[in-house]
Amino acid sequence: MRSACPEEFIKLARSMVEAAREITLPNFRTNLGHELKADRTPVTIADRKTEARLRELIEAAFPDHGIIGEEYGAERKDASHVWVLDPIDGTKKFMTGNPLFGTLISLLRDGEPLLGVIDAPAVGDTWIGATGHGTKHITGAGERQVHCRSCPNLAGAAIYTTAPEMFEGAEEAAFNRLKSQVLFPLYGGECYAYGLLANGTADLVVEGDMAIYDYLSHVPIVTEAGGMMTDWEGNPLGLDSGGNVIAAGDPVCHAAALELLNQAG
Amino acid sequence: MRSACPEEFIKLARSMVEAAREITLPNFRTNLGHELKADRTPVTIADRKTEARLRELIEAAFPDHGIIGEEYGAERKDASHVWVLDPIDGTKKFMTGNPLFGTLISLLRDGEPLLGVIDAPAVGDTWIGATGHGTKHITGAGERQVHCRSCPNLAGAAIYTTAPEMFEGAEEAAFNRLKSQVLFPLYGGECYAYGLLANGTADLVVEGDMAIYDYLSHVPIVTEAGGMMTDWEGNPLGLDSGGNVIAAGDPVCHAAALELLNQAG
Repeated sequence: MRSACPEEFIKLARSMVEAAREITLPNFRTNLGHELKADRTPVTIADRKTEARLRELIEAAFPDHGIIGEEYGAERKDASHVWVLDPIDGTKKFMTGNPLFGTLISLLRDGEPLLGVIDAPAVGDTWIGATGHGTKHITGAGERQVHCRSCPNLAGAAIYTTAPEMFEGAEEAAFNRLKSQVLFPLYGGECYAYGLLANGTADLVVEGDMAIYDYLSHVPIVTEAGGMMTDWEGNPLGLDSGGNVIAAGDPVCHAAALELLNQAG
Repeated sequence: MRSACPEEFIKLARSMVEAAREITLPNFRTNLGHELKADRTPVTIADRKTEARLRELIEAAFPDHGIIGEEYGAERKDASHVWVLDPIDGTKKFMTGNPLFGTLISLLRDGEPLLGVIDAPAVGDTWIGATGHGTKHITGAGERQVHCRSCPNLAGAAIYTTAPEMFEGAEEAAFNRLKSQVLFPLYGGECYAYGLLANGTADLVVEGDMAIYDYLSHVPIVTEAGGMMTDWEGNPLGLDSGGNVIAAGDPVCHAAALELLNQAG
């Protein structure tokens, strides 16, 4: 049994959410310019300012902790506690005025996800999952503990992903095998889909071509709500994980989906 | 020059939005059950109740007008004025707790789109486009006239669609040709994407396998904001149109996209 996430980390994460909103929201729907990074993905000044602010808050509170962020790279990544940040997940959504972008914050202890936050400021949804504390969904109406729903059959599963371009070659074939067996696929989910999974209104999220800052925050949110989240081989996720992840609200559904993903093509 | 949309129709459309919200919002995130229709798409009791209520309002106000709705079919479809309704566009989103579903209302006069409404109640966004009145974006913060942005080059275009399953065979190849030339594709847009286009924060929406109630509401919203919306051959959209549509904020971008879609494969 792992020891629970200390309250002080949850408190810091909540203050980071507030600080991020102060930068993201005033820049939303302002037709902000962008640059294309080396990997051809766009970045705005809001991504950079938000990450810089979040790093300041971590360094002020816990100067020994490590930090890995999408925009400014890694510092002290061998520390016992490492924060992993994506200041704006769904930058393309943010740039086009779509409110389902999010700020992602996660904390790993000894390599294992301990705390995760998905904040979707433009719609006012925050999910916080912390080991030993369950998963909370916080909205303007208050906060409540949320739980994944049962979904023992793939045929009844609503599955989210972000974009078909996430999958190529054998992985595309694997995703298509899975897609053909579920109730229906939905696209454009990004971080918000994992919140819906924790809420018990979606059943599967399957993605590829991700970086750790795109998904480590989701692990405590999904697992503390009763779901499972691993790579496509069923391995736990950590700082050295690859780009393919699968989250399921029901462990039976997780196993069935993994089997299809790994079937000989 | 077509005569402007009479105010009384805009007034009715606004009251229809309020009436629809009274049914959709209390049913949102309640894990409502669903049935699969003959075409294998899901429908909930909220879809049916909403459309029934909207039809009542039209019949009470304008008993001679025709009505075509996704759930309850066509009445008086040869009337000079015909309302076309999709009570919940994005039923799969609605079912999974995703707030970007919408209620779509359109009115055609002598076969031409005259008035269109996209209402996304869970996020509080309404777009109304009416011939001669421009396009309004209404939020909790008030209402304002919106305008599409310039985007003279496909290379700078943010393109939305809903799902890759919308395209098969030659249409899939055509969409992929277009996709390879734009800034980036985004998925899961559904009706909300056309609102972003009217706001001038997205540039293209290209979709296939649609029914008239999925898109006729978008035509006045896009065109009154300065954009263009046609089928993939460049024809205007009406009651007899097919399933493939393209909307662009900039007519130059529309022409360039059409050329790519229609290039020999």
